[in-house]
Order: sequence, then C-alpha cells, then structure tokens
Amino acid sequence: MAQAAELKQLVEMVTSRPGFTSAIGTKVLQVEPGCVQMSLSRRPDLLQFNGFFHGGVISGLADHAAGGAATTALPAGRIAVTIDLHVNFLSPADGETIVAKAQAIQVGGTVCVAKVEVTTGKHDQEPRLCAIATVTLRVVDVPARLAQAD
Amino acid sequence: MAQAAELKQLVEMVTSRPGFTSAIGTKVLQVEPGCVQMSLSRRPDLLQFNGFFHGGVISGLADHAAGGAATTALPAGRIAVTIDLHVNFLSPADGETIVAKAQAIQVGGTVCVAKVEVTTGKHDQEPRLCAIATVTLRVVDVPARLAQAD
Amino acid sequence: MAQAAELKQLVEMVTSRPGFTSAIGTKVLQVEPGCVQMSLSRRPDLLQFNGFFHGGVISGLADHAAGGAATTALPAGRIAVTIDLHVNFLSPADGETIVAKAQAIQVGGTVCVAKVEVTTGKHDQEPRLCAIATVTLRVVDVPARLAQAD
Amino acid sequence: MAQAAELKQLVEMVTSRPGFTSAIGTKVLQVEPGCVQMSLSRRPDLLQFNGFFHGGVISGLADHAAGGAATTALPAGRIAVTIDLHVNFLSPADGETIVAKAQAIQVGGTVCVAKVEVTTGKHDQEPRLCAIATVTLRVVDVPARLAQAD
Repeated sequence: MAQAAELKQLVEMVTSRPGFTSAIGTKVLQVEPGCVQMSLSRRPDLLQFNGFFHGGVISGLADHAAGGAATTALPAGRIAVTIDLHVNFLSPADGETIVAKAQAIQVGGTVCVAKVEVTTGKHDQEPRLCAIATVTLRVVDVPARLAQAD
Repeated sequence: MAQAAELKQLVEMVTSRPGFTSAIGTKVLQVEPGCVQMSLSRRPDLLQFNGFFHGGVISGLADHAAGGAATTALPAGRIAVTIDLHVNFLSPADGETIVAKAQAIQVGGTVCVAKVEVTTGKHDQEPRLCAIATVTLRVVDVPARLAQAD
Repeated sequence: MAQAAELKQLVEMVTSRPGFTSAIGTKVLQVEPGCVQMSLSRRPDLLQFNGFFHGGVISGLADHAAGGAATTALPAGRIAVTIDLHVNFLSPADGETIVAKAQAIQVGGTVCVAKVEVTTGKHDQEPRLCAIATVTLRVVDVPARLAQAD
Repeated sequence: MAQAAELKQLVEMVTSRPGFTSAIGTKVLQVEPGCVQMSLSRRPDLLQFNGFFHGGVISGLADHAAGGAATTALPAGRIAVTIDLHVNFLSPADGETIVAKAQAIQVGGTVCVAKVEVTTGKHDQEPRLCAIATVTLRVVDVPARLAQAD
C-alpha cells in the first residue's frame, strides 16, 4: 500500500489529465486508502433540460470516484477499471454541487467492488442523498501511458 | 401514440436544448416508437486517460437513448425518467464514434424498462459491441418547462 | 404508518404462507418501519456444489427482505413488489446461517429503493459480509389474496 | 473448447448434484458453447403468495443458466462463478414453467458477461418474456470437489 500523499497525487494526476473528468471540472476532495471523495460544481453544460445534474454526469463522477477508491486500496502498480456500473437515482440532483463518496468494500487480486453515495447540496442546506451506485472493477497493471505521466 | 415525425422532433428538441447532451454533441440518428439511436463523435473532452470514451460519457448516452426509447412508446404528454441505470463495459470504446441503440422492452403506466447496446466504430471497420445497459424508468407527466419549449 | 406489532405480523404472515420463502425456512428476526432482518439456516437443499449457500437462495432472501423493508415504510394497504434486483456476491456464503438486513433508503408513492447487506456466520466467529443488494420496488395496493389472509 | 456432448454432460452433472438446483427441479434443455437453456416446472414451494414463481427462484435459475453459458465458452478446466447478478422483473411469472435462455456475450480470461431471457409459458399459449438478467462472472479453475465428481 502506498503512502497517503502518494495516493492523493495519483488520484489527482489521473483526474486532472486532459479528458472527460477534467473537462467537467472534477475536484478531488479527499483520498484515503479505499476511500475517495470528489465533487462537481453546477455548470450549464452538466445539466438536464429540467436544470438538475444529468444522469450521465452523476454516473461519470460515481464511476471515477469508485475507480479511485478501489485503486488506492491496491498495491502500487495496479489499477482498477470499471466493468459494471449500477446507479440508482433517488431524487433530483438540484443543488449547487454534487459530491461522490466512494468506498471499496471488497478488494481482491482480480476483482474489486466499491459503493458510492452521491449527495447534492445548496449553500444554506444540509446535503441530501440523490444517488447511490455499486461498481464492480477489474484489477490490471497500471497502463504504460499513465506510468509515464510524471 | 404520436406520429413518427413528431416523435423525432420531440427527441431532437430534448437532446439539443442547452445542457449535457448538446454539450457533448449528441446526434439523434433514428427515432421510432420504442426505439432510438444516438451517437457521439470522438472528442478529447469525452475520453479517459487511455484515449477511450469515458464510462460516464457512455453511461450518459445510454441513459439518454433509453429515455428516448421509453418516451416514444408512451402516450403524448408522458415522459420517462431514469431511476436505475446498469451498464456493463465489455471492451474498450476506442473508435471514432459510439452509437447507442435503445429499445423499450416493457412499457407500463408507471414503469418502463429499456435495453441499450453501445457499439464503437472506426471508419474502415465493422462496429464492435463495447457496452450494454439495462435502464429502468418512471413515467411522469411532461414537465411544464419542456412543454413550453416550442 | 401501522404500529410495530402489526408490521411484524404482516411480514411474518407473508413469509410463512405456503410458498418459496416458507419452504426454504425463512425466519423473520426483526421488523421496524423501513428496516427488516431475516435469516436462513444451512440445509443441503440450499447449497451449491461447493457447499456454500446458492446465489439464488441469497438473492431470494435479499429480495424478500427488501420487500419487507419497503412495505413496512408504506401506508397501510400498500405493498412494494420488486421490479429490479441487483446482487453483488462478495465472498463465499460458507457459514451456518445467512442474515439479510434490508433498509428502505427511498420511499415514494410509486417507487421505493432498498439496500440489503447479507452476512454469513459460524457459531464461533463474527459474521462476515458475503453479499450486498440494491432493490428497486414498485408500490401497489395489497392484493386481495393477501388482504383476505387473516 | 470441449465437445458438445461433454459440455452437456458437465452442465447436467453440476445441475443434478445434491443442492439447490436439483432440489428445485432444474432441467437442462439445451447446451451449446456459450449458450444454455434450462427450465423449472411450477411447484407450490417455488411460488410467491400470489401464485407466481418467486423472484428468488427466477434469479436462481438465471444465475445458474448464466454460469453454464459462460463456462461452456471457456477452455476445459475453467469455470465461471457469478460475482454480479442483475435481474429485471418485467411481468408476472404465472405460467406452468419458466425457461431461462442464457448467452455469453463476453468471454475473457478473468471475467465473462452473460445475458439471460426468462420466459413463462402455459401449455396452450406462446411463452411470454417475464424477466431479463445481466450476469458478470469471474473465471476460476474447476474446484477439486467438482473435478473429482466423476
């Protein structure tokens, strides 16, 4: 298991590279082994016609946070990639932000499982649970493209 | 059941309104009652670190296509909203485009189910299945915000 | 919301009627509004070839417990029936018993969602998490067949 | 890949061994590499309070058929075990039988995915789709207990 600071660096590096997660403005709030929190701020291009965060955006954040949670529970040099994503949308994601808290609940040599809670919050209110996800991931070696990143 | 031309107009109107689906460049390829095809073209902001379409993007397209498939099978004035999205990622979405074909397989008064196949294609190759999704949706009245859209 | 004693009676009545849940020996351990615990004891006809509880048995217990959790959170005269069952098998269910703890996490007029944790235990060991489930249910009127049961 | 006759023998052997699948009367109808059909006949101990096949029974049949479909697509000596089972219940399983048709749609060295259609039939009617399932499985070596079975 790598050190906490290295883990956070790894998750931030993957998140901030050019691509979908950086384009939608994903912020890494917290990283511990097996546990990751990430957030998105409301922007017009992340919403549905009704003004709520789009299901694809919520799914993408949950997916990425689950990958971080599982990967930080793995030995260095190994990474978890999603094979199965199941999201239940419980209530409208109508806040200023959404926050995904992902936790690895099973960590194996070939397969991991993480669960995710997504809350939405307005500045003057308690965050409210708006979606949950269960994510199954496969464990692979860190791809060369990522390993060369630094 | 509305006419085919009206159905396509409804799906295109929802898709092209400002928000996530238009921001990522969703194209409506085909609309029939209970059956919708949509596509996305490869763009740097839709990819993962490894150069494949991101799982959140694939999930968002599948979700939106499922909503179209279910809604076009409903009576006019009713719309289907996703409550449960399950995506299996089968192989890397490494093509120039991804296409989601969604089909409503159950249409009820309160709940619908749609299944989606997502293929990825390069210009000189046969498209390959890269993900499947099963989507459960709840049936509600068309929101005022949408009804006023025209 | 009905009283706690009535809720337990309702859940036990549904569970003990002739059919699958009574045939496999389902025991109702605890019933509170929105929260139900049930168990099964190891029997040769509930196992897989490898001597663990079969996935279908685990799924059936999770499904039934989720129905109890959602129904006990509903107004009298309404019942929740499963439309969508998602089970993650985390480790072998190799104990003397399995226990499912189901909790309703969303209760609506037409749709409910419950999550379930299934543990397996041996008499001299701490129970271990062996499966989790997420269950989506539809709310309907209590069928005449059940209402007449008393 | 083993021969068709050997594959059928393997699936029947696993199905008929003492345990849940034989106790509920599972019949193996057809076995081809990557594709398996199994059925159950209506019995009081397989039903819900309303007289339909119980969700746990449907899930168990779907799970077992998916395992057969994936395993028969694998090299000899390897077997697929379910890690993730997702069932959508579409309509009441109110017939005399239920039949599960499982098909492997992805076969890998560590993970497989199968989809399953479950139909229910009465003797004088066309079978009707009552459930679909998507099953993710992990590939392992055939356990010693099974290998010694013959």
